[in-house]
Amino acid sequence: MKTPSRKMDHLRITLLQDVEAGSTWFEYVKVVHRAAPEINMKDVNTEIEVFGKKLKAPIIVTGMTGGNENAAKINATIAEVVEELGLGMGVGSQRAAIEHPELAWTFKIAREKAPNALLIANLGAPQLLKGYGIKEIRDAIEMIDADAIAIHLNAAQEAFQPEGDLDFEGLISKLAELIDSVDKPIIIKETGAGIDYDTALMFRDIGIKAFDVSGSGGTSWVKVEMYRALEKGLEELAKAAEWMSDWGIPTAAAIAETRAAAPEATIIGSGGVRTGMDAIKALAMGADIAGLALPALKAAYRGKEELKKYLKAMMISIRAAQFLTSSPTPKDLKGKAVIYGPLKEWLIERKVYDLWLGSWRRTERI
Amino acid sequence: MKTPSRKMDHLRITLLQDVEAGSTWFEYVKVVHRAAPEINMKDVNTEIEVFGKKLKAPIIVTGMTGGNENAAKINATIAEVVEELGLGMGVGSQRAAIEHPELAWTFKIAREKAPNALLIANLGAPQLLKGYGIKEIRDAIEMIDADAIAIHLNAAQEAFQPEGDLDFEGLISKLAELIDSVDKPIIIKETGAGIDYDTALMFRDIGIKAFDVSGSGGTSWVKVEMYRALEKGLEELAKAAEWMSDWGIPTAAAIAETRAAAPEATIIGSGGVRTGMDAIKALAMGADIAGLALPALKAAYRGKEELKKYLKAMMISIRAAQFLTSSPTPKDLKGKAVIYGPLKEWLIERKVYDLWLGSWRRTERI
Amino acid sequence: MKTPSRKMDHLRITLLQDVEAGSTWFEYVKVVHRAAPEINMKDVNTEIEVFGKKLKAPIIVTGMTGGNENAAKINATIAEVVEELGLGMGVGSQRAAIEHPELAWTFKIAREKAPNALLIANLGAPQLLKGYGIKEIRDAIEMIDADAIAIHLNAAQEAFQPEGDLDFEGLISKLAELIDSVDKPIIIKETGAGIDYDTALMFRDIGIKAFDVSGSGGTSWVKVEMYRALEKGLEELAKAAEWMSDWGIPTAAAIAETRAAAPEATIIGSGGVRTGMDAIKALAMGADIAGLALPALKAAYRGKEELKKYLKAMMISIRAAQFLTSSPTPKDLKGKAVIYGPLKEWLIERKVYDLWLGSWRRTERI
Amino acid sequence: MKTPSRKMDHLRITLLQDVEAGSTWFEYVKVVHRAAPEINMKDVNTEIEVFGKKLKAPIIVTGMTGGNENAAKINATIAEVVEELGLGMGVGSQRAAIEHPELAWTFKIAREKAPNALLIANLGAPQLLKGYGIKEIRDAIEMIDADAIAIHLNAAQEAFQPEGDLDFEGLISKLAELIDSVDKPIIIKETGAGIDYDTALMFRDIGIKAFDVSGSGGTSWVKVEMYRALEKGLEELAKAAEWMSDWGIPTAAAIAETRAAAPEATIIGSGGVRTGMDAIKALAMGADIAGLALPALKAAYRGKEELKKYLKAMMISIRAAQFLTSSPTPKDLKGKAVIYGPLKEWLIERKVYDLWLGSWRRTERI
Ligand SMILES: Cc1cc2nc3c(=O)[nH]c(=O)nc-3n(C[C@H](O)[C@H](O)[C@H](O)COP(=O)(O)O)c2cc1C
Ligand SMILES: Cc1cc2nc3c(=O)[nH]c(=O)nc-3n(C[C@H](O)[C@H](O)[C@H](O)COP(=O)(O)O)c2cc1C
Ligand SMILES: Cc1cc2nc3c(=O)[nH]c(=O)nc-3n(C[C@H](O)[C@H](O)[C@H](O)COP(=O)(O)O)c2cc1C
Ligand SMILES: Cc1cc2nc3c(=O)[nH]c(=O)nc-3n(C[C@H](O)[C@H](O)[C@H](O)COP(=O)(O)O)c2cc1C
Repeated sequence: MKTPSRKMDHLRITLLQDVEAGSTWFEYVKVVHRAAPEINMKDVNTEIEVFGKKLKAPIIVTGMTGGNENAAKINATIAEVVEELGLGMGVGSQRAAIEHPELAWTFKIAREKAPNALLIANLGAPQLLKGYGIKEIRDAIEMIDADAIAIHLNAAQEAFQPEGDLDFEGLISKLAELIDSVDKPIIIKETGAGIDYDTALMFRDIGIKAFDVSGSGGTSWVKVEMYRALEKGLEELAKAAEWMSDWGIPTAAAIAETRAAAPEATIIGSGGVRTGMDAIKALAMGADIAGLALPALKAAYRGKEELKKYLKAMMISIRAAQFLTSSPTPKDLKGKAVIYGPLKEWLIERKVYDLWLGSWRRTERI
Repeated sequence: MKTPSRKMDHLRITLLQDVEAGSTWFEYVKVVHRAAPEINMKDVNTEIEVFGKKLKAPIIVTGMTGGNENAAKINATIAEVVEELGLGMGVGSQRAAIEHPELAWTFKIAREKAPNALLIANLGAPQLLKGYGIKEIRDAIEMIDADAIAIHLNAAQEAFQPEGDLDFEGLISKLAELIDSVDKPIIIKETGAGIDYDTALMFRDIGIKAFDVSGSGGTSWVKVEMYRALEKGLEELAKAAEWMSDWGIPTAAAIAETRAAAPEATIIGSGGVRTGMDAIKALAMGADIAGLALPALKAAYRGKEELKKYLKAMMISIRAAQFLTSSPTPKDLKGKAVIYGPLKEWLIERKVYDLWLGSWRRTERI
Repeated sequence: MKTPSRKMDHLRITLLQDVEAGSTWFEYVKVVHRAAPEINMKDVNTEIEVFGKKLKAPIIVTGMTGGNENAAKINATIAEVVEELGLGMGVGSQRAAIEHPELAWTFKIAREKAPNALLIANLGAPQLLKGYGIKEIRDAIEMIDADAIAIHLNAAQEAFQPEGDLDFEGLISKLAELIDSVDKPIIIKETGAGIDYDTALMFRDIGIKAFDVSGSGGTSWVKVEMYRALEKGLEELAKAAEWMSDWGIPTAAAIAETRAAAPEATIIGSGGVRTGMDAIKALAMGADIAGLALPALKAAYRGKEELKKYLKAMMISIRAAQFLTSSPTPKDLKGKAVIYGPLKEWLIERKVYDLWLGSWRRTERI
Repeated sequence: MKTPSRKMDHLRITLLQDVEAGSTWFEYVKVVHRAAPEINMKDVNTEIEVFGKKLKAPIIVTGMTGGNENAAKINATIAEVVEELGLGMGVGSQRAAIEHPELAWTFKIAREKAPNALLIANLGAPQLLKGYGIKEIRDAIEMIDADAIAIHLNAAQEAFQPEGDLDFEGLISKLAELIDSVDKPIIIKETGAGIDYDTALMFRDIGIKAFDVSGSGGTSWVKVEMYRALEKGLEELAKAAEWMSDWGIPTAAAIAETRAAAPEATIIGSGGVRTGMDAIKALAMGADIAGLALPALKAAYRGKEELKKYLKAMMISIRAAQFLTSSPTPKDLKGKAVIYGPLKEWLIERKVYDLWLGSWRRTERI
């Protein structure tokens, strides 16, 4: 039972160690205040409709866990809270339960505790490449009666796992084959290293309509694997992981790259989202939903109330920002970011700046 | 008597807590020294005429208080000092006295102690939207025989008040109706989050000719409300406020945005003005007057002499800067700022850079 | 005898207090290494000819003192060292000796101890404007058999002296009248706030061929006067001076501004030059000579050997840099600076960047 | 026997003192992650062919030592490790052994311990200019059966050696004469101050096809000589060296300058390469091989295992980066760097930015 034990390592390490690295580059984003917003707060609506569900605010807890008892408890806590607040959540990779059906309850508990909330199933790209197909995808969705399924890209993590799945070739064509047979939306999801323009473009071209960018600046899976490598005495691997722990595209840049490649897609802006201000910046950079994982895990570990308070503060922040930027809906926050420093230099160097400014930006003044 | 008690909270918190957040971006402004200024200090005139009054220097204390005994004492102290120095001041929101005429004396005391100084009346935009009209505006002006009236925009603060007035819709049209019936100049005034280009433009279009930009980098009303929320046990609200305490447009940018939108307007550059150098930079960025609140409050609290010394040092600074930049009048400081870093990037991103350079800038060399 | 006592204050304060402020912006300058310099160190010649004298290296100690016994000792020490090393020096303002001829020996001692070295006489612009004319200029030159005379601009200092001379009007025309009657070169010299493009241009237009830019980032005379004001109990003046102690144009920018305005002039790059690397950067930015005051004062105070070591290390630095940049003469260092950050932004904002690149820059590649 | 003793000073100082200065500017480089790399790790090949040898990864230890017993031990350790790992190494300057053949064994030991690895011979440019010719070059190559020979440029070091060889004139023409008679590739190698565009161009023009840029940000030979000067009581020299210890072109810029000048050349990116991430950035900036000296020396001093672990971690890093950027070969990393800040400003100021982007950069989007 290798997967479950690795999953337990992960929970333990992310809870006890410093697993964050790099920067989201949100420090190079400001959202433009409107002194006279000409709006009534009662007309500010933070709700969004996404994947067939209505969310009270554009916030989700992204997929983390499942597969063991502790994980089930965490899934239950998160589920109760998002149900209560009208938000959404993902579960962690369901591979363990696919391979060991007796573990399915640790995921199903999410739907039990959250009968109405948006739930996102989760499988890893490496599994698709090692034989998983339409059956497993359907199983994963059905297992939790999911509203969508995230296929996670975690190449950076796999590269630093001694037991890593290191074949990422053919994923696009594999997905291209499957996509029409899956009746729930497929979300292409990174896990902390960020989606780049080219990757987003390739997936958009085969019909993918949703992305979770999960950029760098928050939880670093390279760093998590560094701790595991150290525990296993794999010094060279640990050293390489330490050196590369801030690998990836900072979240603010990843949102812009993905938005530039897929102007119509549903984009979850995540990776290092820690405060309400981060969430607002993610939305203003072009995300439809802000996502977070690690802080939700830590809060859930301290209890349901902690998590509720934390997410509520995020909801209040977004409502306030919509009010203060004259944005009746969360979508209206888009294009209200002003960027500078390395973030702007990056977008220009990458030739995505103009594409990103794209359609939503206010037209030139004169 | 809700308003007065809230006002007392505000005084207490701003005096005892750290209520400042973010940056004015004045650190990205330098004023150009003229080694041979070709001017005689005796020809340097720091006086300006504004709102029908003559000021000995382009400095005012912006509106803060009134409505209770302590507030009255502070108003009195500030009034005595500005009268003596030939400067100007605003009073805090007069809503309390409009609703409880027995409190009017706490505002009137300003005019008593400052029979000749520039005095600015003050009402909040939310009140206008909740029924105040020409009558209340006139009452406020008459109450202190004001030379102008500031209508303050404090959406950011209201958004974090549990009891916040959250309807900002229709302000422009409401003011458009009133404007011709008010025989004193109306100043559109922010309270620490900064006036943006679009807001300034809308007000200019209905005939507003004066603005107090009150940008971010000084007193943060979001942060003040954080303390109040904490005291009331509103943890989520407090957390959201903490996260967003540097919300707003940095003062240096706000001055440029407002000047770009209203090249002919009278602009008060305020929000985080703490030193003479800040005041000089505000003027060089395009303000006609530098304004400050919190440091004047703190000085006034320590006594009249403290405030006088502080404001005198500001006057000396401005005089010196005019001399050293060959500026016979404060107006001549305009366009003598060189900007860089995020401030310049902001103005370019916002498409206000060229508008800001506008008319006053020296023409091309060669 | 007001002047001498003020001069003693200055010596005491600059020796005992921290009188430096701001930055030279040399941190935004790099000088381009040539890996294969294709030069023999024996063909590297650090000598320059300037004001009719030959210097062993392009380094001078700029004018500081005179007028009392301590000052005389310092002048003597500096003179002995520059004579021995083949460098140059200026004396401090000779006003005291013009007005009190019995003090002339405190300046003359420089020529006694340095019979061959480059010596620069010194008078203040304010004196010219208060009646000094051709006679006093000649007296000052003759007093020390000077090779040139610096007319110093110290408006920033005067502005913060309670007894300041605050008339700077008419200096250009006054100098225009005098210039043909003075048979030694006149150097327009700042004193720590930097010469700007416009000032340099005006002086160039009346025939001035030499400048000492003395920019900000080193000794701040505003800060020196802050200490004096504090000692005199002038709190407001001290506060204003504290706020404005980094007033001025950073040395790196001042060199570029002056060079842009006067491509053919002899330029002394000074103000905050502390290390050999600073001196090299000053030369690469376009100065002909690097100048320094405060560190020479401090070294001289500790004795002749200290100063000699210090200046020798500077000479070694310049020789090394010429070698490593394939520069047979100091002039060849010009145009070998690469600039970035605020310094480059400043030059572009000021529209002097292209003028500065001017004639010496290598032509476009391709 | 002057050279060997100096060489012992160098070993001692570099091992015991802080001899690093400045920055590589790698902090202004990011390598672009590909979330869906569409590659199988088993198709990632880190091998390169260079100078007729195959390396398991594009990493070499650049030349450091020889000439005494300790040096021999270090050469042996490094040789054993690179043989085992399939990497390459250089030896230090072989001048000592050319002049004292009895010392040749201290270099030969490298080939004994590394019969198959890439070995690079080493002679200094100053020696070529003082009489060394084709004979000595052949001797150096034969001595260790080298695959290539590095001619090192160390003008910055020589400039701060009391006994420095300071004639660098005629190197190009001298090499131009020799080049056809040397049957192994000649590498023009800096030693910590970086190769600039002009130098690279000159060498390319005479037929040089390989460069080791060895930029600033790592070991500073100016700083090393500072310690030696201090030990010898040469205070002025030491002070000058201290001031100039960060002299040179930062490694990231040096790689770009050299690549811009010699698009087809084999380039070793070295100077301050400390981590696997640095090595990756060097390759992404346009180097073919990453080189490092000081950290290898320190590791070798602690023993063979230490060095092996260190270099293995580097190999793992590069493999991971190739995987994560979809780069089947190390060459494919080229052009996958995004640069910003001073590094980008430098390249633009130097007019090498467009040349650098050159051929490998992806063409415009749209
Ligand atoms: C304990 C833990 C387990 C995770 N497991 C998964 C997973 O199974 N599948 C997945 O797509 N992402 C997983 N993630 C990644 C998160 O969904 C998220 O993309 C990443 O942590 C970055 O967000 P953060 O900085 O807010 O933590 C996990 C994260 C954590 C902290
Ligand atoms: C204690 C206090 C009370 C204030 N009350 C008012 C007010 O009633 N009306 C208003 O327009 N602004 C009010 N302000 C805002 C100030 O006028 C000013 O815009 C803001 O504090 C930013 O300036 P500062 O950074 O110099 O404090 C108040 C400020 C303080 C510190
Ligand atoms: C003690 C002292 C006295 C000075 N007196 C004069 C003076 O009389 N005339 C003058 O032109 N500059 C005078 N200066 C200014 C210096 O020449 C120089 O321009 C300034 O100090 C900046 O250089 P630094 O940063 O190397 O000190 C004086 C400087 C010092 C430290
Ligand atoms: C102890 C030591 C001795 C060196 N000796 C030589 C040498 O003889 N020839 C040479 O080309 N470079 C020599 N170098 C320079 C290195 O090859 C390298 O270019 C430089 O140290 C910068 O790389 P680093 O920052 O990784 O140390 C030496 C470096 C060290 C640390």
